[in-house]
Amino acid sequence: MTKTQPQALWIYAHPEAKSFNRDLFDAGRAELEKTHTVETSDLYAMGFDPLLTSADFGSHAHDDDPFMTRWVSARADGEVPADVLAEQNKLLAADLIVIQFPLWWYAVPAMLKGWMDRVFASGFAFDIEDPETGGSLRYGDGLMAGKRALIVVTAGEHATALGPRGISGDIDTLLFGLTHGTLFYTGMSTLPIHLIDQADDTTAESSAREITRLTERLAGVYEEAPVPYRTRKSGQYRPARVLRDEFVPGRVDLGIHRAESE
Amino acid sequence: MTKTQPQALWIYAHPEAKSFNRDLFDAGRAELEKTHTVETSDLYAMGFDPLLTSADFGSHAHDDDPFMTRWVSARADGEVPADVLAEQNKLLAADLIVIQFPLWWYAVPAMLKGWMDRVFASGFAFDIEDPETGGSLRYGDGLMAGKRALIVVTAGEHATALGPRGISGDIDTLLFGLTHGTLFYTGMSTLPIHLIDQADDTTAESSAREITRLTERLAGVYEEAPVPYRTRKSGQYRPARVLRDEFVPGRVDLGIHRAESE
Repeated sequence: MTKTQPQALWIYAHPEAKSFNRDLFDAGRAELEKTHTVETSDLYAMGFDPLLTSADFGSHAHDDDPFMTRWVSARADGEVPADVLAEQNKLLAADLIVIQFPLWWYAVPAMLKGWMDRVFASGFAFDIEDPETGGSLRYGDGLMAGKRALIVVTAGEHATALGPRGISGDIDTLLFGLTHGTLFYTGMSTLPIHLIDQADDTTAESSAREITRLTERLAGVYEEAPVPYRTRKSGQYRPARVLRDEFVPGRVDLGIHRAESE
Repeated sequence: MTKTQPQALWIYAHPEAKSFNRDLFDAGRAELEKTHTVETSDLYAMGFDPLLTSADFGSHAHDDDPFMTRWVSARADGEVPADVLAEQNKLLAADLIVIQFPLWWYAVPAMLKGWMDRVFASGFAFDIEDPETGGSLRYGDGLMAGKRALIVVTAGEHATALGPRGISGDIDTLLFGLTHGTLFYTGMSTLPIHLIDQADDTTAESSAREITRLTERLAGVYEEAPVPYRTRKSGQYRPARVLRDEFVPGRVDLGIHRAESE
């Protein structure tokens, strides 16, 4: 190879070796492999430990300091558990991050949440000092800046119930803590969510159609415009971290955090 | 005792034996014990297994059916894992359910999410046939009807950032999948969220103030009005499960699912 391929990391959180989710995962990876070096984290298959405890804080596990303080101390001393460090290094190497999971109770499965809780650690994903301001980098800035993230989520429900004014809440809002509060927080550019509805009631035809829709989306993943979340440095938030009144006045839905709302 | 006391169940998901969260837990339980029989689920201390896999499906673990179908089969045959059944029975016995956790990445910790994923099982919390309609009971109806739920959540952030138009999203919306999508889904009446902000930066004074605020709230917990979410049976949603246009027209924030919005 004379030219280095872009790298993709596919995080996969479904427990079954054979499932519709697995078919999507296999087809999606195969598509990306045409143009990327693809790394995966098949969390159930890896037996990833999803529980954040002070066991992650190395020699600071039993210090007298509060929980978060010990986490900072551990990171400062370079004490990061091997399984967490491996995931962090995969993230650092990736240009594109795909996160695939079934929607359980309108949120990510515990396995994926635990991957976030542990891997998006203090000093890696938050509590990173901003050399310019002395504050901390977040919301549009951080170690993940320049990377793209795509959420692929299956749901056992009709898209209408997960759309605007749907009874379950719209998927963008339900996953805001992930797309905006976690991925964009660390600097990633997040793409519109790829929702696959009625995933508990598939036919051979609907499965094939969804696999095609996913692979076509992946083929054009660098042509897409990321969700234009407002950055913290944009000056559009007051010091109390509330959106200034002049932007989309009167609205309180989470869509206000997108600059396209003007 | 001639009169049976009401029963409370306190679900607690923080890893530390000594912490501000633990102090809130201890004080809160002591307050409830004045008037309730109090049961607890200290999830980390119990070593609760947060990972839903087909191991929960008894003899149907390896059937050829899809994941969800096997879960239904297991429940139909009364095959519920002992640790899950114990939690389900605690829920059934409770009049009041308190769920306490630190906000990690704008959501519940993996441990608590896993408790939801496994305990809120098929046939217990969803996929319960409605004898009237032949559909399934959900959103305001179910085995948890008549119970009250209170979320107690600590966050390492100012309340303004977690309030209306706050940069992180308001706490009601961030936790909508829990309050509305999980607890209200199963029939519970959910009370306004009890948010404790700046929890990573407490002083002896602020801790004492928050403990008092929590115990006072618990003392009056039956006098409070639950969040008036619209039920599925209210007729306010179209068959596509989208809120009818005549209710709070034009709005798309998740506050539209509260009847008080009129």
